[in-house]
Amino acid sequence: MSATLPPLALTQGDPSGIGPELALKAWRARDERGLPPFFVLADPDHLARTAAALGLEVPLREATPSQAAAIFPQALPVAPLGRAVRGAPGAPDPEDAAATILSIERAVELATQGEASALVTNPIAKNVLYAAGFAHPGHTEFLAALAERRFGRAFRPVMMLWAEELAVVPATIHVALAEVPRLLTRALLVETGAIVAADLSARFGIAAPRLAFAGLNPHAGESGAMGREEIEVIAPAVAELRACGVDASGPHPADTMFHAAARARYDVAICPTHDQALIPIKTLAFDRGVNVTLGLPFVRTSPDHGTAFDIAGRGIADATSLIEAIRLADRMTAR
Amino acid sequence: MSATLPPLALTQGDPSGIGPELALKAWRARDERGLPPFFVLADPDHLARTAAALGLEVPLREATPSQAAAIFPQALPVAPLGRAVRGAPGAPDPEDAAATILSIERAVELATQGEASALVTNPIAKNVLYAAGFAHPGHTEFLAALAERRFGRAFRPVMMLWAEELAVVPATIHVALAEVPRLLTRALLVETGAIVAADLSARFGIAAPRLAFAGLNPHAGESGAMGREEIEVIAPAVAELRACGVDASGPHPADTMFHAAARARYDVAICPTHDQALIPIKTLAFDRGVNVTLGLPFVRTSPDHGTAFDIAGRGIADATSLIEAIRLADRMTAR
Repeated sequence: MSATLPPLALTQGDPSGIGPELALKAWRARDERGLPPFFVLADPDHLARTAAALGLEVPLREATPSQAAAIFPQALPVAPLGRAVRGAPGAPDPEDAAATILSIERAVELATQGEASALVTNPIAKNVLYAAGFAHPGHTEFLAALAERRFGRAFRPVMMLWAEELAVVPATIHVALAEVPRLLTRALLVETGAIVAADLSARFGIAAPRLAFAGLNPHAGESGAMGREEIEVIAPAVAELRACGVDASGPHPADTMFHAAARARYDVAICPTHDQALIPIKTLAFDRGVNVTLGLPFVRTSPDHGTAFDIAGRGIADATSLIEAIRLADRMTAR
Repeated sequence: MSATLPPLALTQGDPSGIGPELALKAWRARDERGLPPFFVLADPDHLARTAAALGLEVPLREATPSQAAAIFPQALPVAPLGRAVRGAPGAPDPEDAAATILSIERAVELATQGEASALVTNPIAKNVLYAAGFAHPGHTEFLAALAERRFGRAFRPVMMLWAEELAVVPATIHVALAEVPRLLTRALLVETGAIVAADLSARFGIAAPRLAFAGLNPHAGESGAMGREEIEVIAPAVAELRACGVDASGPHPADTMFHAAARARYDVAICPTHDQALIPIKTLAFDRGVNVTLGLPFVRTSPDHGTAFDIAGRGIADATSLIEAIRLADRMTAR
């Protein structure tokens, strides 16, 4: 199906991280893993230097998005950013921040104009971008801001971690655990559930997605014996979603939701805390997890790891998660 | 090794739950699973009725603990409690609470007198016992109280969930999540860690047990960016344990602690919350997890499930966890 679609746009990410190496390795795995055509928004010279330094045989070809599909079988298409990368592997240069940001901006532009079918983003390092004046809390919020700029309305991005075995959504993410009881509101859960249900239908082809909500407390509170958030917040949110026609269930005790038989009962687990969601998927699929952003007006996937400056330039970075992100983006757009 | 040890004492648990069925099924699996001799502290007539109703061919023989090993290959040895069970499967009778409690008391007595090498306890239902005047918060606390009565000093039991792949200890257990930040003290973690380290040496034959402490917050707080418990509580506890010669590490981000490569780096993971500990072990080993009580003056294991009144009497209860509990108790006492 994807042969008739535009190619995927792969951002460079922080050029001093493992992103460039992963892009090269993903292209080399294109046949073995059946990858759809993609192009990288990057500095072609830097990519060529990276390939040479790592001894990776990857022919590169400068290309527009519309040329990418034809080139892809023979060479990795690169859409040049017009800015030369200066940082060395593992030593990010604040001067490169502009190119990192530009790569993301261009990818959004191309995706919203229909020249790219989706975004697959390589990892960035927020502190490097902050030093260059970047004012967004993170990668995903920046994408939402770009979407808002383009479409003139706000979008609420929802992070989902996806692997063949399991999909999870943390309802709260990078906040102190002590803050979670206060942040976990019925409105948050209903909004999250509605976005997840809509995107699982639209992007994953699941007609009536089954959303399983985890409890916040041990054993989902045991009828209020250990915390009342299940009774006062989560159960009402599940009821509200059901009233709107969403197949929501729970709150379920989180510890018994993730063995194979339990996983067969739902399409996605929505968990109050970061660790409730990320522990099971990283236990089951450590190298294969994909970060998917739901709720945006375009498909965006990303490998589930960071820039890994500590191993950049050594040739040992594992491209599995990026490859899975490419495959999932293709699957989501092919519908 | 266990041939020279006394037999294991198996308590009846709530007789209206699945305990009696599990005991019968475990005995039938004795050859296949290489189980050591055990005897059940129960009402022999009730066990015989249960076997007949479920169509399980299990010869029963009344026995003292010292006779059990010789009987075990041919029949399931039963040490009678002298009280007839009245409740039906799935319909617990408060009148049976006295026998349930007596079974536990006798097992502790026999274990502390050297007539049983360890306790394997079948599940009880606290609300049934409460109705009969039972005044302990739970099964484990009752065992600690019995140990205190016998030895004249207090014991601090520590719950560990164990499977071949992973052992975990939740530092807080059945409390509301909102209470965890307040309950998670350096003293609690140091005391827990010291008991775990001592028992992993004494009972599991691990000369220098490696204890990995999980953070409370996402990514273990990222140097204080998301919560300060790692800096103020967990890291100091780890440092204190290390100063005492314990091989403790952490705090580690909980979500990346449980894939196979990470698990190889420690012998037990100690987690601030119930779900951080129980999610990964139930994801990996749902039917095989064993509940082990550390910190008591005797070995006690238990299946990692409840009385399951809803399926009692139907013959479908899975004895895997009880069998694993029997095997682990044997392994712990054989040292």
